[in-house]
Amino acid sequence: MDKHISAAAILEAEILERIPLADAMDLKVPRYTGDEIEMTAPLAPNVNDKGCAFGGSMASLLTLAGWGLVELGLRAQGLECDIYVGDSQLRYHEPVWGELRGTARFVKQGVLAALAASLRERGKGHLDVVCEIAGERRAAATLTARFFARLRK
Amino acid sequence: MDKHISAAAILEAEILERIPLADAMDLKVPRYTGDEIEMTAPLAPNVNDKGCAFGGSMASLLTLAGWGLVELGLRAQGLECDIYVGDSQLRYHEPVWGELRGTARFVKQGVLAALAASLRERGKGHLDVVCEIAGERRAAATLTARFFARLRK
Repeated sequence: MDKHISAAAILEAEILERIPLADAMDLKVPRYTGDEIEMTAPLAPNVNDKGCAFGGSMASLLTLAGWGLVELGLRAQGLECDIYVGDSQLRYHEPVWGELRGTARFVKQGVLAALAASLRERGKGHLDVVCEIAGERRAAATLTARFFARLRK
Repeated sequence: MDKHISAAAILEAEILERIPLADAMDLKVPRYTGDEIEMTAPLAPNVNDKGCAFGGSMASLLTLAGWGLVELGLRAQGLECDIYVGDSQLRYHEPVWGELRGTARFVKQGVLAALAASLRERGKGHLDVVCEIAGERRAAATLTARFFARLRK
């Protein structure tokens, strides 16, 4: 199996086992390329009182996508880390009336390599990720978030 | 029963019935004063891979608290609205290793009355809310969010 597909499948199983809310959301990790990750969730378990996607589900999906992108990127470099989300800016542009589809990517090239170097040198570091939930004509929601990584002892 | 206690109990039942993710979080609404609302959730269904509270659960609790504060404030004025979360700034200051306890309050006095006037005049409006999850010595996480309200036809 392609190493990216395999990494995404392992991550999905780990998330569903260790993060009960992701399991309640029925989260899937259908795509990972090394530079980008996609996570999806059906509407039914993520609906709100108005019949569209609950803001908390969107925030959760976007946060998981960003975290997963960093987690898999560092694993590929042989770095086992604890990764925490830091300050985040969430913009909701339009409601989502169907499946939630979120993608995360690094804000610029080279940030993963820089984080890996910082982890090897100082045992910690951070980088910024941008995550979007697909909408009808534009992103339905956007998250810009900083993630902090710390090398596991 | 005190009208605020009764309003909080009704809101809790509605949230659990209509927002499956809030039910999965085991959300409670133990306190509402008119100016402030408190929501709580136990750690177990909201834990992450590191054993502390999942960022998405914190974002969801904070978003629900802000939304609930606006919803109950407008109901008390006899206004039935659809209320959507807008742009949000989330700051995570420290991990939460136990029950999540979040409170929401208006950013300044008079904003609810101003929103009610806007709704009566134009059928829509918005206001800003600040929500915090309690930490050991300071807030563990803070959400500043804009909520948009639209009068239901």
